[in-house]
Amino acid sequence: MNYPNGMKRSRTTSPRNRNHSNRGMTLEEDINLTNQYYLAHNKAVIHKKPTPIQIVNVNYPSRSAAVITEAYFQQASTTDYNGLYLQTYLDFEAKETKNKTSFPLANFHEHQIKHMASILEHGGICFIIIRFTVHDETYLLQTKDLLPYWEDQFVGGRKSIPYKEISEKGYLIPFKYQARVDYLAILDQLYF
Amino acid sequence: MNYPNGMKRSRTTSPRNRNHSNRGMTLEEDINLTNQYYLAHNKAVIHKKPTPIQIVNVNYPSRSAAVITEAYFQQASTTDYNGLYLQTYLDFEAKETKNKTSFPLANFHEHQIKHMASILEHGGICFIIIRFTVHDETYLLQTKDLLPYWEDQFVGGRKSIPYKEISEKGYLIPFKYQARVDYLAILDQLYF
Repeated sequence: MNYPNGMKRSRTTSPRNRNHSNRGMTLEEDINLTNQYYLAHNKAVIHKKPTPIQIVNVNYPSRSAAVITEAYFQQASTTDYNGLYLQTYLDFEAKETKNKTSFPLANFHEHQIKHMASILEHGGICFIIIRFTVHDETYLLQTKDLLPYWEDQFVGGRKSIPYKEISEKGYLIPFKYQARVDYLAILDQLYF
Repeated sequence: MNYPNGMKRSRTTSPRNRNHSNRGMTLEEDINLTNQYYLAHNKAVIHKKPTPIQIVNVNYPSRSAAVITEAYFQQASTTDYNGLYLQTYLDFEAKETKNKTSFPLANFHEHQIKHMASILEHGGICFIIIRFTVHDETYLLQTKDLLPYWEDQFVGGRKSIPYKEISEKGYLIPFKYQARVDYLAILDQLYF
């Protein structure tokens, strides 16, 4: 695993924050709480986009709110999170897996990858946050390090990224009580 | 009306683009097409956020997609649009009014205004797009010029912004066949 300053994690380091286990909270919940913390402390303005839903039928009962009575989940065309930090556009997707040894690329859709590549091209910061629930570890992997895996799968490469490579190319995100997935701490060292 | 370069519109100018009337297309449709054009031409990556919906009940019929059978519209906590242009974070809200002489401030919610103020504070570009459908004119008004009107309404000021003042402090957005609401043309002159 890389730390942003290039240090390797020592094998003798004790297991990270086992007593602060995330179990019971989903990655999405943790990130939402983190974003609320960032916003409340005026550190960054980052929001999750609402889930895209195709509405087919709505009832308007008298004297009460409109009720959607038929609707369907749509595939997202972008990532789930974006926002503004230190005058810079941030964009990321978050996924968790129960897999121990690798992260399946099927977790992404083609248009999400295209979106992330566009963000890089236009000068934004773009990354993914991956949680291995079994290891209770959450990594930040920069889009530039994700794209080669995505492309390789179409020319005979693996359909997943090995856990070991994520732990080497990615950055372990510290767990904190308030900023539960403190990804800005990683970005600070990588970009600012 | 200001042009970005400070020129005043001449009184002798012929009416703008009357033959390119927007009638029949909503402002949202026009902006979505504009954003698609920007994306297809690799000019900017700007998307409308999905409408936030609170899902109460979902059915999972066998062998077909999940059907949401009870859900409610929620109030948006941010603006409708954000994205990335020339390495810069953009954020805006779009509204149209049938009113001829003013734009009612009730079109915004308190938390949208707070969000826009935060974006300014963190160094993003933030603005609103207002269409007066009767005049068939669409203006870009910078958030910095919106905020004083918002605040004044709570200390005895008007509950709306006069059309005349929007036409003076705002920037008329050109209608083009491909970029139907070409707001980047205004931003180019204001910021880039």
